[in-house]
Amino acid sequence: MEDIVRQDEATLRAEASRLDHEHVADVVERLNQHDPETNAALLAGLSDERVVEILDLPEFEDSGEVIANLPRERVARIIAGMSADRATDLLAEIDEPLRSQLIARLDPETRSAVSRLAAYPEGSAGSIMTTEFVSVPSDWTVAQTLRHIRAVEKSRETIYTICVLDPATHALVQAVSLRRLIAAELDANVLSAGRHRRPITVEPRTDREEVAQLFSKYDLLAVPVVDERFHVVGIVTVDDVIDTIFAESTEDVQKFGGMEALDEPYMDISFTKMMRKRAGWLCALFIGEMLTATAMQHFEHELERAIVLTLFIPLIMSSGGNSGSQATSLIIRALALGQIKLRDWWRVALREMPSGLTLGAILGTLGIIRISVWQLLGFYDYGEHWMLVAATVGAGLLGIVTFGSMAGSMLPFILQRLKFDPASASAPFVATLVDVTGLVIYFSVALVILSGTLL
Amino acid sequence: MEDIVRQDEATLRAEASRLDHEHVADVVERLNQHDPETNAALLAGLSDERVVEILDLPEFEDSGEVIANLPRERVARIIAGMSADRATDLLAEIDEPLRSQLIARLDPETRSAVSRLAAYPEGSAGSIMTTEFVSVPSDWTVAQTLRHIRAVEKSRETIYTICVLDPATHALVQAVSLRRLIAAELDANVLSAGRHRRPITVEPRTDREEVAQLFSKYDLLAVPVVDERFHVVGIVTVDDVIDTIFAESTEDVQKFGGMEALDEPYMDISFTKMMRKRAGWLCALFIGEMLTATAMQHFEHELERAIVLTLFIPLIMSSGGNSGSQATSLIIRALALGQIKLRDWWRVALREMPSGLTLGAILGTLGIIRISVWQLLGFYDYGEHWMLVAATVGAGLLGIVTFGSMAGSMLPFILQRLKFDPASASAPFVATLVDVTGLVIYFSVALVILSGTLL
Repeated sequence: MEDIVRQDEATLRAEASRLDHEHVADVVERLNQHDPETNAALLAGLSDERVVEILDLPEFEDSGEVIANLPRERVARIIAGMSADRATDLLAEIDEPLRSQLIARLDPETRSAVSRLAAYPEGSAGSIMTTEFVSVPSDWTVAQTLRHIRAVEKSRETIYTICVLDPATHALVQAVSLRRLIAAELDANVLSAGRHRRPITVEPRTDREEVAQLFSKYDLLAVPVVDERFHVVGIVTVDDVIDTIFAESTEDVQKFGGMEALDEPYMDISFTKMMRKRAGWLCALFIGEMLTATAMQHFEHELERAIVLTLFIPLIMSSGGNSGSQATSLIIRALALGQIKLRDWWRVALREMPSGLTLGAILGTLGIIRISVWQLLGFYDYGEHWMLVAATVGAGLLGIVTFGSMAGSMLPFILQRLKFDPASASAPFVATLVDVTGLVIYFSVALVILSGTLL
Repeated sequence: MEDIVRQDEATLRAEASRLDHEHVADVVERLNQHDPETNAALLAGLSDERVVEILDLPEFEDSGEVIANLPRERVARIIAGMSADRATDLLAEIDEPLRSQLIARLDPETRSAVSRLAAYPEGSAGSIMTTEFVSVPSDWTVAQTLRHIRAVEKSRETIYTICVLDPATHALVQAVSLRRLIAAELDANVLSAGRHRRPITVEPRTDREEVAQLFSKYDLLAVPVVDERFHVVGIVTVDDVIDTIFAESTEDVQKFGGMEALDEPYMDISFTKMMRKRAGWLCALFIGEMLTATAMQHFEHELERAIVLTLFIPLIMSSGGNSGSQATSLIIRALALGQIKLRDWWRVALREMPSGLTLGAILGTLGIIRISVWQLLGFYDYGEHWMLVAATVGAGLLGIVTFGSMAGSMLPFILQRLKFDPASASAPFVATLVDVTGLVIYFSVALVILSGTLL
């Protein structure tokens, strides 16, 4: 028994020494394989500086639980050393009453930064910004600014973008890059390193996806977040933007797959949590799809007289769903990238109508060929009216694929108009919508073409 | 007529003056609304420096055509001023014989950079890197390095990451950030600003998605690309990585929607090109889905005897497709983010089997309730054996949803194993796979449960 403890301690010591030397991102990757108690024991042996580095990475899991296992006094010191945005996220993960106790122990500056950041809604620029940026008054020289940067470097999230403020009003005058500052004359005014145009800024409530688009468009490393008086309340840095883009596109793909977005990696999420994320949409879609049974019941009479029609129901329905899924994926991405806006819906409709008709005509022709070949080569006998059956399938496909393209492309707009996330227009959602309508289109076409013969 | 020309000229002059003062990204956005001839006329009035800035943005469309309308001598000057990676992309867009003529006019340094970059395959680190980086020998001081940076700043894509090379072998010793350099002692060795660990690097053939994951994990601004002797052949910067992540996730969503990825914005792509991207997969899926008709024909005898079974075919098939689509979206993203690897397939299977069974049980129960309620409340009469019909639907759903989850989660692995892009496992692809098998499962269950009564 003692042996095991000794061995455990030796392993822990060896592990702790590795934790001191590797890149912090690799350290976090390793720590994530342990449970929170082990991690608390490991962090206890590291310097405050190192623990701050580890907790500053959003990838570190269960940080709230780990923190709860460390001495309070130390935790307060560590939180004060962390970047304000990560400290805010960390405190949000800690349960009461510990959270209030920790907040009470923070220095006033950190406390006010954390409480301001916590007020911004999730998914906004305010929620991913940090308050540790470099700012200098606009009457400083380049040399003064560089000296200041050197002095405060350690405590700032980024020094590559410097906010130059009006000395009187403290409003943002310009955002200067370190790059241009380095290249500028040392005794020139700091603004000589800026451009003569209004700086690119965002507001605290700007959607983080919009922020990401700005970074992509203007090749930014950081963007100041300003309030209505143009005071800088924080700065969004490119590393948070990259995490945002990855997170948003994962959410988009999962929603498009017809489920709620997981907020954890696939292998880490618990079984019950995953079931909740998947079962909700699956049941909703199932209940919607029940309308197909109702529609089929409605056409029961026709079904009995022309069993041959049922053979093509899956083929026709899935084609409508597939063309709808294509159109939806196109529109969701174009909306997410800002390539099209809500007001462009009619331009999209004007593109999708001919697209749907063309694709429908292609599939309709394929369907007619399929039936004719099987009939003429004797693989299957569709009855004496096989030509009319083929015509019904062909016309049905034309109508359903066109409807699928239109419904699939318009659904994201409708959802956005109703203030839902357009990415909720999932492939299964579109397929369900098209399935029910598709059946009605198919049987209506059949009634027109086959009435007097089969029906 | 002359009036119109005069007005046109005035408009052009006004436009050109705006082009000189706005942010280059906004300029490009505006230029993209004109045709290439107008843009060539506009660029003719701008300074070389400004034209280089414009062409350096990957967002500028039809740059090849615009260039073709400018004087050759000027184009050679402009290309030499551009970043090497963008110059390479630009030259790739220009048709022969103009391309060879332009390449012949380039200075030897630009020409060799361009020819090296053009050799890297699309989607590799080599294809998104640039050759304009800052490198210094490892025996320099911090002050020397800063002086050098100041001198070469204008001609480098980034100065925030400096490659420190062995003075003898020119191999990479360390990548130092400008941030640490600024904070370091001026007369210390440049390596004092580095960390004592092997620098993070990639190889020219590293997949750009992997490069993006490294940036996200290590919060990088740039990463050196090294050959087998650890010589730096280029550098990948964060702005190109952001563009990469956006492009990759758009591709993933479009492929998941069941089409080939468009390489142009939705509103810009031509009608015929869009049809080619969509029709191919749609036809392939249609032909696959034809097997449903074959399966239905096979069970024609059962269909005739129990029309009531057909009523639930769309419901059952779509549920299998939906659960498959969920599973696929989860696995595609987890693979794209590097959360799971090919070798983890069995661990995923062990998670998806109980998930599928649970979800199938939930939907199966809902299905049985639906039939019972309709029967008992008299909405519809499913015949004297309605309880057996309900049992068939319930058991069918259990089997099909489980099969859907398994097939949907394994398909991306199978595709990756076969060296296809796992993202080609689209929602429609999975749905088609599940539809055909689903029909067979449903009718097999029916044969077991209903044999002796309805069948």
